[in-house]
Amino acid sequence: MRPGLSRGAVSLAIMTSGSATLGYIQGQVGQALKDFLQRQRPVLLGASDELRPGLDALSGLLAGGKRLRPAFCYWGWRGAGGEDCPQILAAAAALELLHASALVHDDVMDGSDSRRGQPSLHRQFAALHAARHWNGSAQSFGVAAGILLGDLLLAWTDQMFQASGLPAGALRRGQPVLDLMRTEVMAGQYLDLLGQAAGDETVASALRVVEYKTARYTIERPLQLGAALAQGRGSATAAAYGLPLGVAFQLRDDILGLFGDPAQTGKPSGDDVREGKRTVLLAITRVRASAQQAAIIDRLLGDPHLDEDGVAEVRAVITGTGALAECELMIERHVATALSALDAAPITNEAKAALAELAITATARRG
Amino acid sequence: MRPGLSRGAVSLAIMTSGSATLGYIQGQVGQALKDFLQRQRPVLLGASDELRPGLDALSGLLAGGKRLRPAFCYWGWRGAGGEDCPQILAAAAALELLHASALVHDDVMDGSDSRRGQPSLHRQFAALHAARHWNGSAQSFGVAAGILLGDLLLAWTDQMFQASGLPAGALRRGQPVLDLMRTEVMAGQYLDLLGQAAGDETVASALRVVEYKTARYTIERPLQLGAALAQGRGSATAAAYGLPLGVAFQLRDDILGLFGDPAQTGKPSGDDVREGKRTVLLAITRVRASAQQAAIIDRLLGDPHLDEDGVAEVRAVITGTGALAECELMIERHVATALSALDAAPITNEAKAALAELAITATARRG
Repeated sequence: MRPGLSRGAVSLAIMTSGSATLGYIQGQVGQALKDFLQRQRPVLLGASDELRPGLDALSGLLAGGKRLRPAFCYWGWRGAGGEDCPQILAAAAALELLHASALVHDDVMDGSDSRRGQPSLHRQFAALHAARHWNGSAQSFGVAAGILLGDLLLAWTDQMFQASGLPAGALRRGQPVLDLMRTEVMAGQYLDLLGQAAGDETVASALRVVEYKTARYTIERPLQLGAALAQGRGSATAAAYGLPLGVAFQLRDDILGLFGDPAQTGKPSGDDVREGKRTVLLAITRVRASAQQAAIIDRLLGDPHLDEDGVAEVRAVITGTGALAECELMIERHVATALSALDAAPITNEAKAALAELAITATARRG
Repeated sequence: MRPGLSRGAVSLAIMTSGSATLGYIQGQVGQALKDFLQRQRPVLLGASDELRPGLDALSGLLAGGKRLRPAFCYWGWRGAGGEDCPQILAAAAALELLHASALVHDDVMDGSDSRRGQPSLHRQFAALHAARHWNGSAQSFGVAAGILLGDLLLAWTDQMFQASGLPAGALRRGQPVLDLMRTEVMAGQYLDLLGQAAGDETVASALRVVEYKTARYTIERPLQLGAALAQGRGSATAAAYGLPLGVAFQLRDDILGLFGDPAQTGKPSGDDVREGKRTVLLAITRVRASAQQAAIIDRLLGDPHLDEDGVAEVRAVITGTGALAECELMIERHVATALSALDAAPITNEAKAALAELAITATARRG
């Protein structure tokens, strides 16, 4: 059993709440997104029927995803005393549009081929271009379509948030948190890019990127947004629970990216290595590596054509240095810190139970 | 004298209002954008000092521009009876963030080297990468930085709009117009891209792109947004004045792109031709071209390395077919239609005068 799970209220609540919680939110958020897309259809198809492939691609992308950010937003709201209602679910669902936008643009920037088990959006449009034998470069067309569709998703974030039906006062309280969340994630992405370019391999630098790009963006700010919408002062809880959990979440993601089942992650195994991503897992590997092991990482990291044997070689170094075990331990410790913060938080017991469950779900071993 | 300028109230007003109107808005909007950027500094630099080049690049980009969209928004507000105040100027200035975002992403998609007389943002970051001898491709780094900074500008659009200080009721009335404006411009951009790829050379198709990408986005929706913020029902005026004026504005832009002074346009002459843009000017040229003239256009359009002699050859065909003269006539007619709609509009005389002046400024011969 993971540390932290033996704590009073939280462990009891986990045992009784089951996994229905996230499932409920996933269902509601999925429906809210479908309804939103349905309302955009006449606007886009009114301009031209040629926008249908764009709409279809967005529908496909938005059908997937674990809905973690909406779930944290929803439980931030509930934890501060807000009632379950369609309005908070619609506002929370808007975070999926933001996230989908980030994924589409990320895939363009990284040149990624797949996302959520399907071809990435820019690849879908490059394929459309090729199939129709259009003029010019299919790749450039795909990139441009990806940029535009990501922009549309980003613009829709506010539209869906503002049209959620929450009272004006709630939206006014939530807006600055949403603002901060977007600026921070873009700052984190730029720092990630920069660190990769500048060859900054330190654990500290990788952790700073994780803080901005994942911990705040995925957990702290969504929780805080929900609390702000419900007029709660959720900042302290959001940070104390969200930051360590966010680090644990990203570490699990790093591990799954190399050791997970592609059928479950929706991405080919080892893409982080091919893209030369400076993950915390790799930064820790470097710290623990012998000269010989470091040379292997240096040789293989960032090779876009790395095959399965090469990826296996990287895996062997990560395991051999003990970095994998250290990361698993870090995940356990960070989850324990998050759960401990949760125990002390001034929020409802129901929210504590749900957030404890989310902490486990978001960081569980899979694949 | 252009048709339409002899009409009663409007022509009188133009003579008396002078050019101070747009200058005032430009000054206020510039200051509001500076203030907004100033408030973002601690957020970004708090994450890392390495974000400074991004901030500086955005400051540079946002210092330029004619502020046409804010001006139309402002006069939509004033026309509906709203008072001059810092709040409407801040809300209107948010449209410059949206526009800057579109420019940055456009330049990435088109691979454009310059914007507003400076290197385009993605080129600035490619140059930074090269100067620092960072790892990987300088071009890819530039593109990724351009995508992220464009995203940041797009996210900031709402932030600045919502934080303008206008009452919640006003913002609630304005939001759907802002939403529509963004969806429409992205739809227009995609249709532009698609038409270019599919080789659709018709005037009708080029005009549809102009309607969505320029006329609604630059004039109709900003005007309607201002009116909605002031609780006015400005839709009819916005469309009757905005759509023809938008077409005239884009036609002038097409002409300036080929026949204008690069020092004034901030872009090398002929870039539209190098990028293979399907402008209305070129669509009209095709309709009027002989087989020989059409062959010249087919040969040169979309050649990214076209030199000044090649551009001159295209210019000669456009002039020789009479397409240039036809476009000038179309501009005059569309401006006249816009001014005529203005005369009949249920808005204040002061707004009529300012909007008449803006119509002239936005479509005047230059260079």
